[in-house]
Amino acid sequence: TFTIGIDSGSTTTKGILLEGNAIVRRFLCPTSFRPADSIREAWEALRDGLEETPFLTLTGYGRQLVDFADKQVTEISCHGLGARLLLPEVRTVIDIGGQDSKVIQLDEQGNLTDFLMNDKCAAGTGRFLDVISRTLGTTVEALDAITDGIAPHPLTSMCTVFAESEVISLRSAGVAPEAILAGVINAMARRSGHFISRLTTQGPLLFTGGVSHCVRFRAMLSEHLKMTVHTHDDAQYAGAIGAALIGQRQRAR
Amino acid sequence: TFTIGIDSGSTTTKGILLEGNAIVRRFLCPTSFRPADSIREAWEALRDGLEETPFLTLTGYGRQLVDFADKQVTEISCHGLGARLLLPEVRTVIDIGGQDSKVIQLDEQGNLTDFLMNDKCAAGTGRFLDVISRTLGTTVEALDAITDGIAPHPLTSMCTVFAESEVISLRSAGVAPEAILAGVINAMARRSGHFISRLTTQGPLLFTGGVSHCVRFRAMLSEHLKMTVHTHDDAQYAGAIGAALIGQRQRAR
Ligand code: SF4
Repeated sequence: TFTIGIDSGSTTTKGILLEGNAIVRRFLCPTSFRPADSIREAWEALRDGLEETPFLTLTGYGRQLVDFADKQVTEISCHGLGARLLLPEVRTVIDIGGQDSKVIQLDEQGNLTDFLMNDKCAAGTGRFLDVISRTLGTTVEALDAITDGIAPHPLTSMCTVFAESEVISLRSAGVAPEAILAGVINAMARRSGHFISRLTTQGPLLFTGGVSHCVRFRAMLSEHLKMTVHTHDDAQYAGAIGAALIGQRQRAR
Repeated sequence: TFTIGIDSGSTTTKGILLEGNAIVRRFLCPTSFRPADSIREAWEALRDGLEETPFLTLTGYGRQLVDFADKQVTEISCHGLGARLLLPEVRTVIDIGGQDSKVIQLDEQGNLTDFLMNDKCAAGTGRFLDVISRTLGTTVEALDAITDGIAPHPLTSMCTVFAESEVISLRSAGVAPEAILAGVINAMARRSGHFISRLTTQGPLLFTGGVSHCVRFRAMLSEHLKMTVHTHDDAQYAGAIGAALIGQRQRAR
């Protein structure tokens, strides 16, 4: 039997159709101005053509916005579960999304033991990379190609707003945009390293969320933490996978 | 004899020509891309036509950038001294400038006993009001006129970056820009109130720095602190006044 998990994030809406431990379908779209519309879109796409109506579990910021879900669960519980499916021995999950970041500690059995959450300051989230990339006329998606093999130029401001001004000054002073962007990734990776260390440095570590796609960020995070940073092609779906798994458990009862 | 104090701030450069306790001349300009140029401009304007060359004391971010000053002093020492000249019985100074904010505690004799400084997060500084005002197509200078008598609309984000997005959403949802701006001032005044309370709530309190010109902000800060918030026409010059006073003391030796 199928279950569906949808993770309604502030930036991206992710959805998964699960059968046992197998991912049957994935859905991803930018969260619309009306997040409920994106949830509905995900729901229709994922259940399309199925004979039975799958059990639907919602998670993420927008999880309360529609009334047709069977269950609603917090991100933290879903993320830990989803991460275990992607990397069964995982003990620490770092999730960096568009507008928040969280680090989750799991015991050997995969139970949640502790977590830290940041959704108050843009500096530790994907928004930081997004704002600075735009200031330099590019996008987060292009960062790997642009900064490949480029040494980072040091950046002193950690606040997104002050970093934006600093980046403009560095450009006026003739520093190459590639070196600035490598420096921006490095500054954020260092900050994320500190954030993780505040909770735990127990490996294996799985990196999830939109920012996990940036290869250079991963490499720099690994350098700052002095440990292996695992990721997975489906890392951005960890929350949705966990939600679908919770649906399975509920059905099994 | 005359002394000059120049406060080279990140946003504004302020200068004072002092004779005894009397302010003879004031100078104020936006800090140029090369802050040293603004210091030089202030120096030339303030000493213009004087027979003797006045003793020059520099303070603020840019104080190390020129080599013609007689003395350089940190902002904190200057601010306390300058505030005493503007309000002799002052015990607490809150200074909110373009890119930092500080709260300074003085004892009955006017000696500095403690201080708190924020120059890491734009949210507690003039930059916050500046970014949000621009997002709504106006300026900090116009805030008093625009928000006069308008009830504040609640704002949930304190991060400058997230508040900017929230303000755009509120506009799309049809909330009047006047009510949003009143809400923005209120949110920042509440935050500043917390910041002050972390150090002291001993009055009299003098409010200095660029943001002290905003009457609505002052009123809201007073409400949150439940105490009188004093200011002064020369409040933005407190650091420069203190620097000039330090020059006098040095000369007197
Ligand atoms: S203004 Fe800067 S430091 Fe402050 S919360 Fe926002 S991004 Fe973080």
